[in-house]
Amino acid sequence: MKAVAALSPEEIHEAVFTMGRQARTAARALAILSSDQKNAILHAMAAELREQSAEILMGNAKDLAAAEENGLTSAMLDRLRLDEDRLEVVAGGVEQVAELADPVGDILDERSRPNGIRIQQIRVPIGVIGIIYESRPNVTSDAAVLCLKSGNATILRGGSEAIHSNRAIALALQGGGEKEGLPPYSIQLVPFVDRESVKEMASMDDYLDLIIPRGGKGLIETVVSLARMPVIKHYDGICHVFVDEAADQEMALEITVDAKTQKPSVCNALETLLVHEAVADKFLPALAERLAARQVELRGCPKTQAVLGDQVVAASEEDWGTEYLDYILAIKVVSSGEEAVAHINRHGSQHTDCIVTRDEANAERFLREVDSACVFHNVSTRFSDGEEFGFGAEIGISTDKLHARGPMALRELTSYQYRVRGSGQVKDSPR
Amino acid sequence: MKAVAALSPEEIHEAVFTMGRQARTAARALAILSSDQKNAILHAMAAELREQSAEILMGNAKDLAAAEENGLTSAMLDRLRLDEDRLEVVAGGVEQVAELADPVGDILDERSRPNGIRIQQIRVPIGVIGIIYESRPNVTSDAAVLCLKSGNATILRGGSEAIHSNRAIALALQGGGEKEGLPPYSIQLVPFVDRESVKEMASMDDYLDLIIPRGGKGLIETVVSLARMPVIKHYDGICHVFVDEAADQEMALEITVDAKTQKPSVCNALETLLVHEAVADKFLPALAERLAARQVELRGCPKTQAVLGDQVVAASEEDWGTEYLDYILAIKVVSSGEEAVAHINRHGSQHTDCIVTRDEANAERFLREVDSACVFHNVSTRFSDGEEFGFGAEIGISTDKLHARGPMALRELTSYQYRVRGSGQVKDSPR
Repeated sequence: MKAVAALSPEEIHEAVFTMGRQARTAARALAILSSDQKNAILHAMAAELREQSAEILMGNAKDLAAAEENGLTSAMLDRLRLDEDRLEVVAGGVEQVAELADPVGDILDERSRPNGIRIQQIRVPIGVIGIIYESRPNVTSDAAVLCLKSGNATILRGGSEAIHSNRAIALALQGGGEKEGLPPYSIQLVPFVDRESVKEMASMDDYLDLIIPRGGKGLIETVVSLARMPVIKHYDGICHVFVDEAADQEMALEITVDAKTQKPSVCNALETLLVHEAVADKFLPALAERLAARQVELRGCPKTQAVLGDQVVAASEEDWGTEYLDYILAIKVVSSGEEAVAHINRHGSQHTDCIVTRDEANAERFLREVDSACVFHNVSTRFSDGEEFGFGAEIGISTDKLHARGPMALRELTSYQYRVRGSGQVKDSPR
Repeated sequence: MKAVAALSPEEIHEAVFTMGRQARTAARALAILSSDQKNAILHAMAAELREQSAEILMGNAKDLAAAEENGLTSAMLDRLRLDEDRLEVVAGGVEQVAELADPVGDILDERSRPNGIRIQQIRVPIGVIGIIYESRPNVTSDAAVLCLKSGNATILRGGSEAIHSNRAIALALQGGGEKEGLPPYSIQLVPFVDRESVKEMASMDDYLDLIIPRGGKGLIETVVSLARMPVIKHYDGICHVFVDEAADQEMALEITVDAKTQKPSVCNALETLLVHEAVADKFLPALAERLAARQVELRGCPKTQAVLGDQVVAASEEDWGTEYLDYILAIKVVSSGEEAVAHINRHGSQHTDCIVTRDEANAERFLREVDSACVFHNVSTRFSDGEEFGFGAEIGISTDKLHARGPMALRELTSYQYRVRGSGQVKDSPR
């Protein structure tokens, strides 16, 4: 393989499309592997990740050295860094995926028609999935093995800053898997990091059935604007908690504090709190006290300011649409459940939104009218997660409405096929 | 509304985006209508279509006059033409949709977690669906009412040649529906036919959740290359029948003749026949005789030519990938089931493919290994159809693998939402 600088656009095109053709062939072989075969492959991959740990950590050290030279922030360096413990988590994750139920072959629907034909709707793999991601090298393994378990081939395109780590991990996965019969080219990593490779992937809809971008909004936007095939997007989580007038105050305090502070950097963390005006006078001061103890900055509407005084700064219009991922909380007092729902549907990101209330009718109206992937009643938004839902590992939380919505795990990495069996039925002469 | 020529690109942008905003508001209202309300609306629409038949036929007469002036072919004129009988079919179709089960609110999955949270996965409408279609004015009604029954708002953009028919039909649907409480702007027709309007629709991913193009390959390609939101494609049907060595010869003849000739102009008609070499000498002459009686042109591989002589012309490589939609059949003799599967996966369009055989093992291998939306055993490909599958009316047959594959009816016009109920669960302090 030539150095990156030496590759012409034509060579990149040829290289990426060759990977596409190879992946398509691999996908046909993968689609008919049994669950036992796939699980044996996964265990061999986990073993090889452990076997190759020295090589992987050496690759990671190269990436870290380059990153430091390039002045990456310490948060970025931390995302990039692997060590024995983190690598063990990656290998253990592969074994966990082996334990999950295989969705392929599930019968989704079954019916017989009056003319005697029998119709089965059966889960089958999607085919070839492109994963385009940024700095975390563990995504190389996490994404590839979920796709593999669901019978799909993958083409992985990681960030330039993790290229040596990603190469070593992909090599271990493919090499380990082949010992147990993994078809060649089932897991391929784009071996260069030219931006042109993303464009080429986005254009090859004959070979890629789906692209999942995992990363910031800029990356997702780029992929969406280029892609000719379906893209499943994992955009922001601007999550809300609505404290209804009939809320249990202590429960509302616990859920709000948990949703905001238990891990503020993730997409299912709380960003905007809505409080019914009937309880604002009592609830807000109690909340401000608990959040002050955790150094949370409060940004409120005028009514919130009237209650909390200098414990809160004025929220701007922009705050209602901001995913802080930080110790900051926007607060708005609303005069009704309808206003809460309207605010969420207008400013939210259709990710996860919660009502806290003892009133069943208010709860049911909220659950029905809020147009989000996950709507919660008396549960912290932090439970919006594939593992918490009992799906096992997740590839992300989709903010799309087509194909996959909310936590996206093995089932969402499958398509289906209709298998129809008859005894010679024709349209012309009924028999 | 100004005449088309007078609209600037900015005015078109503003008009289409205004429709988008209005549709989003309508969709929220539609999502919470009960099945009874929606059915009452559908019956009122059917009544209004009948009530307005004179206006609709007058609009259609205008379109037909313009089309004749523009020299459209008689086949195109026939697609465009409405009369009392055809309009009654359209109105009756609306009533049939009222009879179908409402998918909204169906519980797809339900589970409780060890921490006590209860998770329901519930069908909900998608939101706003754009339909971009060509000359048939009945699509205006057929598509809009399927979207309505599944709780979605629609923005319809029909072909210029049917604009007066489409306007009159859309007016009757919206007007009739409003008598029974249809939210305003639930069904909107783009009132001008500038090409710019397709571009604008494809760009407004804030307001359109999905676009379904219904028409030729050129139209679909244009939408795919422009669209920022998901597109569900209904591409060609290059359908195959494979006559296995263990086929019942009479059944294979009947299925082949039916699939090819019962209605050759549709996507589930047969285009390429594959015959196992062990039975080619016996099967092909019998088939040629039956097809000759129906004036079907045969294009064969060299082995087919060796058997049929001058009853067949030589097939070119291009024939294997052609959707004739006509009285033409491509024929290839293959030496094994594997070769048949490989041919179909390479040249087919993943629509509908059939094996005729008495051998169960051969059949099951074929069903599992052919990567098509519909795989049939001993059934004519002409049964690949939403109504034949028992789904009721269909909006098309998807050749995509994401979200909807194969016959696409009401269920496929829905998304889902997770509704989670708890008793104050938080991550920090387990309770």
